[in-house]
Amino acid sequence: MDEFGIIATYFAPLAGDGAFGLKDDAALLPARPGQDLVITTDTITEGVDFFAFDPSADIARKALRVNLSDLAAKGAAPAHYLLNLSLPHTITPDWLAGFAAGLAQDQQEFGISLLGGDTGATDGPLTIAVTAFGFVPQGKMVRRNGARIGDAVYVTGTIGDSGGGLAIFKREKHTLNDADRNALIARYRVPQPPVGFAEGLRAIAHASVDVSDGLIADLGHVASASGVRLVVEGERVPLSQPLRTLWGDHALSRAVAAGDDYQIAFTAPPGLEGPFTQIGRVEAGEGVGLIVDGKAVNVARPGYRHF
Amino acid sequence: MDEFGIIATYFAPLAGDGAFGLKDDAALLPARPGQDLVITTDTITEGVDFFAFDPSADIARKALRVNLSDLAAKGAAPAHYLLNLSLPHTITPDWLAGFAAGLAQDQQEFGISLLGGDTGATDGPLTIAVTAFGFVPQGKMVRRNGARIGDAVYVTGTIGDSGGGLAIFKREKHTLNDADRNALIARYRVPQPPVGFAEGLRAIAHASVDVSDGLIADLGHVASASGVRLVVEGERVPLSQPLRTLWGDHALSRAVAAGDDYQIAFTAPPGLEGPFTQIGRVEAGEGVGLIVDGKAVNVARPGYRHF
Repeated sequence: MDEFGIIATYFAPLAGDGAFGLKDDAALLPARPGQDLVITTDTITEGVDFFAFDPSADIARKALRVNLSDLAAKGAAPAHYLLNLSLPHTITPDWLAGFAAGLAQDQQEFGISLLGGDTGATDGPLTIAVTAFGFVPQGKMVRRNGARIGDAVYVTGTIGDSGGGLAIFKREKHTLNDADRNALIARYRVPQPPVGFAEGLRAIAHASVDVSDGLIADLGHVASASGVRLVVEGERVPLSQPLRTLWGDHALSRAVAAGDDYQIAFTAPPGLEGPFTQIGRVEAGEGVGLIVDGKAVNVARPGYRHF
Repeated sequence: MDEFGIIATYFAPLAGDGAFGLKDDAALLPARPGQDLVITTDTITEGVDFFAFDPSADIARKALRVNLSDLAAKGAAPAHYLLNLSLPHTITPDWLAGFAAGLAQDQQEFGISLLGGDTGATDGPLTIAVTAFGFVPQGKMVRRNGARIGDAVYVTGTIGDSGGGLAIFKREKHTLNDADRNALIARYRVPQPPVGFAEGLRAIAHASVDVSDGLIADLGHVASASGVRLVVEGERVPLSQPLRTLWGDHALSRAVAAGDDYQIAFTAPPGLEGPFTQIGRVEAGEGVGLIVDGKAVNVARPGYRHF
């Protein structure tokens, strides 16, 4: 099947408003008065962000969700996405059907539709670039640069689970029970970005970032953009029971550097309650500090780098 | 240098309005009242769309221009772009500096700015996905589906030159003089989409497509979307002198199937004059016909396919 056949068979059924059934040169996004468009793009690559043996539906959902996480962290409601696929020649119709089913499932879950994209063949690894579009009320996008001294630092969900799942695939540990093992692998394969929290975030957050490079590294982006210091109290960082079982005493130090979490870290006035955990505070200064048992802990080269 | 260093050194200087210096999770595009946003995306891959030995500035400009061509064909004025780069580990600072210089040159030429993107490493070929954003007055995007019986078919520029350049790289012919050889190679490396014609196109065109898969194949998309037949009179198809020299008697049949032209083919009332050539007519029926010396000619499997 050539790319026209692939598009017509698997992707045209996913096309929404403005996509013209994927049968034109471009897509159309009419202006929404009073709304700003928020745009983000992230590429996932076989062997780096997923494995060839992962279910193709999960790969599709990961490709979408690593982008939906960025929109959520900016307070934006997702609306559309573009898909750039570089497919190895070994891809089968079965794989494509699963991939399209994964997209369809998440389109329904998050209320989004396919706007366009392109499909080509590659001699290299399978590569999937998604560009996601969301809307916020005009001027209300939550930036990285608004953290204020006296703010608390919060994070949604639990941290490090995806890194734990990856560690299992890398054969680091074989002693977990099936339930714990599967829970961590599931988080690696299908991130759980708090998309529904975007509106709540907009109402309270002064600064926000999606946790993708690693908690400490991403908080570092907020500290740098805002010109402040963020201090994380290690005991407060939410860690799941499977992750504690996997990594024991090293769970915290591994988790805060692991990355691939696709949760939201943000600063807001202290003492707030909601679907998040207060983990620290904003001070004068620069960089990010991690305090454990009252002592500063070094996190060496935190966060994932591609090179 | 890791990806943060690459972004800060080479790409942050190219960032424009709404990109936040490439230092946030997402970009922001405020609504423009009375304007629709037109979005297109195309990936170019080493070994398919360009060669590893091509100058990196030319590769950058090709990555942009294959997208600007789609915007122009829709009557849209380009404004911004996203860049997804998958870089082999062998990429050097020198290569990146040339690549960024090529982007900067075309940003200035076309009045566009970098909105965001991502940069990762790959074990496969160099892959560059660009997503381009342009604006049209509300409801004025030129679709593929508006061709009317009685329209003439027009095309901008000359057809087949890029295919000629590729044929030279594939060692098909060695007899051209340097000027002809360089002219065709230049068209392969740096497409010349008629970006400035977008507004003029909007004023006259009923249907329009960018010529990327091959003239006959792309006219086929218009015929199919519009429910009509397009007939091309071969003698009228504009071919450059270097291409006629390269391919002789086969110039027309090769040119109309070659692809990679990044010109605009459109239908409009007959007899119009402008920066384009009338090459045929729209009739009742389906598909595309090519007439040479009054006889119908078959074009076998026209156009480029990735698989």
